[in-house]
Amino acid sequence: MQQITRVSIRRAGGDELDDSVVIEEPLEIRVGERALSVTLRTPGDDLELAAGFVITESVVKRAADIREVRHWGSPNVVRVALADGVHVDWQRLQRHFYSTSSCGVCGKTSIEALRVNTTPISSDVRVDPRVITRLPELLRAEQRTFDATGGIHAAGAFTASGEVIAVREDVGRHNAVDKVIGATLNASVDVLVLSGRAGFELVQKAIVARIPIVVAVGAPTSLAVELAREMNITLLGFVREGRYNVYAGTA
Amino acid sequence: MQQITRVSIRRAGGDELDDSVVIEEPLEIRVGERALSVTLRTPGDDLELAAGFVITESVVKRAADIREVRHWGSPNVVRVALADGVHVDWQRLQRHFYSTSSCGVCGKTSIEALRVNTTPISSDVRVDPRVITRLPELLRAEQRTFDATGGIHAAGAFTASGEVIAVREDVGRHNAVDKVIGATLNASVDVLVLSGRAGFELVQKAIVARIPIVVAVGAPTSLAVELAREMNITLLGFVREGRYNVYAGTA
Repeated sequence: MQQITRVSIRRAGGDELDDSVVIEEPLEIRVGERALSVTLRTPGDDLELAAGFVITESVVKRAADIREVRHWGSPNVVRVALADGVHVDWQRLQRHFYSTSSCGVCGKTSIEALRVNTTPISSDVRVDPRVITRLPELLRAEQRTFDATGGIHAAGAFTASGEVIAVREDVGRHNAVDKVIGATLNASVDVLVLSGRAGFELVQKAIVARIPIVVAVGAPTSLAVELAREMNITLLGFVREGRYNVYAGTA
Repeated sequence: MQQITRVSIRRAGGDELDDSVVIEEPLEIRVGERALSVTLRTPGDDLELAAGFVITESVVKRAADIREVRHWGSPNVVRVALADGVHVDWQRLQRHFYSTSSCGVCGKTSIEALRVNTTPISSDVRVDPRVITRLPELLRAEQRTFDATGGIHAAGAFTASGEVIAVREDVGRHNAVDKVIGATLNASVDVLVLSGRAGFELVQKAIVARIPIVVAVGAPTSLAVELAREMNITLLGFVREGRYNVYAGTA
């Protein structure tokens, strides 16, 4: 799946040349017969993106609720088919998602609705500080599209000993997280590594996916720190150049 | 308005200390009697954010359609009152915004609905390359919250000669753009400067606000380049260290 395209540009000064830019295209995610979402994503891993999205936004409760995910008449439409007997509370989704937003928290009509139902995590997993400080470079080593374009986020699922389970890139950081969660639904993930900042929504996605440790190269937000503490996960920020800050939990 | 909070953290190695993090809190935007959106934003300039949002998402057509914007029973709720006789097409909004999304393009139910109605821009404005290369540092000089937290985006409105009209910061880059557009509804803005990347939605917001030149410190996306070329605006990317790339238009 093509993630990069070439465009003809001029440099300051006037030289004409070709440059690589990351592809951004809309993906419609359908659940059964209904359109649930349109997201601007980088093509590739669309099925994992859709699976991760319906899990982390609590449209369904568990991976087993998903019978099949496949493209649906277009490379930019994906349909999630649910297992027999799985009930989606469309009324609740409509309450939560009707309306729009200019940020990652999309379409919740009331402030309470920002939070999906989840419970604190209980985990004994610990990661050696020498592993923690290496995680960003392990993530970066898998970022092929970033190398070419300089314009894409990444998220990675790792074990506590620093083994890569999956790394995904996307023009939207929420999509990168959904892709990597969708790719590891049946794996045991200890650490979610983010190439950028850690806001509320990304930390909430990790919690819904029951990942106990979030490692961000960038800064966390106040609400992300609060949520991580309340839900008992470990949140590390500014993990770079051999250093990091512990904003929640133990590490 | 407080944009930063202090949290107690540990550094790798065990030192405990206080650290500044950027505040992220939900803001509900109401139009008349209806809740339109909840966005996670950094408090401050909420009225400008709401005004910019209803303009750039084409809820209303022009600044004169807005009678008043004010807080509504809570510091996290803002109500936009419309001028007499202004009609909002709630049916269209419901079609466009019902559902959710994991990225900046929120809640559009069909792929066509990503685009708001707009027309190409015709502008003779030119900016001297020596001004262009200075814009990121002029933006940065106004970024107080970034200096303290390292975790916030900025957007700035400038004249063609490089004078600052307004700079706003926010944890969400879409919010930073809406704030700055809301702050300059009655000004003539030549250049929108972005501290990060230039995706489709941000370029579309500039076009709806009739700003003819977008200058991004980061990378553009394929769809942003396409839209800029189609709508006849100038899009510059990787504007840093005295250099830049021209992705669309003339500069």
